[in-house]
Amino acid sequence: MGIRHVALFRWLPDTTPEQVAEVERRLGELPGQIPELRAYAFGADVGVSTGNFDFAVVADVDDVDGFRAYRDHPEHQKVLGVISALLAERAAVQFPITR
Amino acid sequence: MGIRHVALFRWLPDTTPEQVAEVERRLGELPGQIPELRAYAFGADVGVSTGNFDFAVVADVDDVDGFRAYRDHPEHQKVLGVISALLAERAAVQFPITR
Repeated sequence: MGIRHVALFRWLPDTTPEQVAEVERRLGELPGQIPELRAYAFGADVGVSTGNFDFAVVADVDDVDGFRAYRDHPEHQKVLGVISALLAERAAVQFPITR
Repeated sequence: MGIRHVALFRWLPDTTPEQVAEVERRLGELPGQIPELRAYAFGADVGVSTGNFDFAVVADVDDVDGFRAYRDHPEHQKVLGVISALLAERAAVQFPITR
């Protein structure tokens, strides 16, 4: 068993592509900094559906402890600081997966 | 490249465990019915964070056409009918992934 963490973001209306690119750059560094991450995928919505959120992060870890280590890691907390300044809305779930 | 579809649901307050189990049973049949699905994971939130949504579905497909085939497939539409009757809130994103 593993745990998949999913977080979806809707950005504030005046969020710029450069700000989103900076979020992506910082998220891209996390797998090298947080050993508990088993798989990590993130990206902007491709615009194929109406009413979607703008961005998704999907992190796979071994267990709840692995999720807490990711969630509380200083480097992740720094990125959350950048993200939260741009955030209009957030939805998240952590659910069990077979790995 | 592939596309990852993520949908998060918050259930109506009076949703029962049996109703969620029925959703899970039906979702579990989709990979055998929809050939465009490359990976499919779903489940209830494990309760490790406050304020989360209740349920997540994560579907990996090859491309936007694969996503549309999944989205519009009659068996998927049937499950959406069951889900929408229980739904208080929904958030979704489709984003590019390297497979």
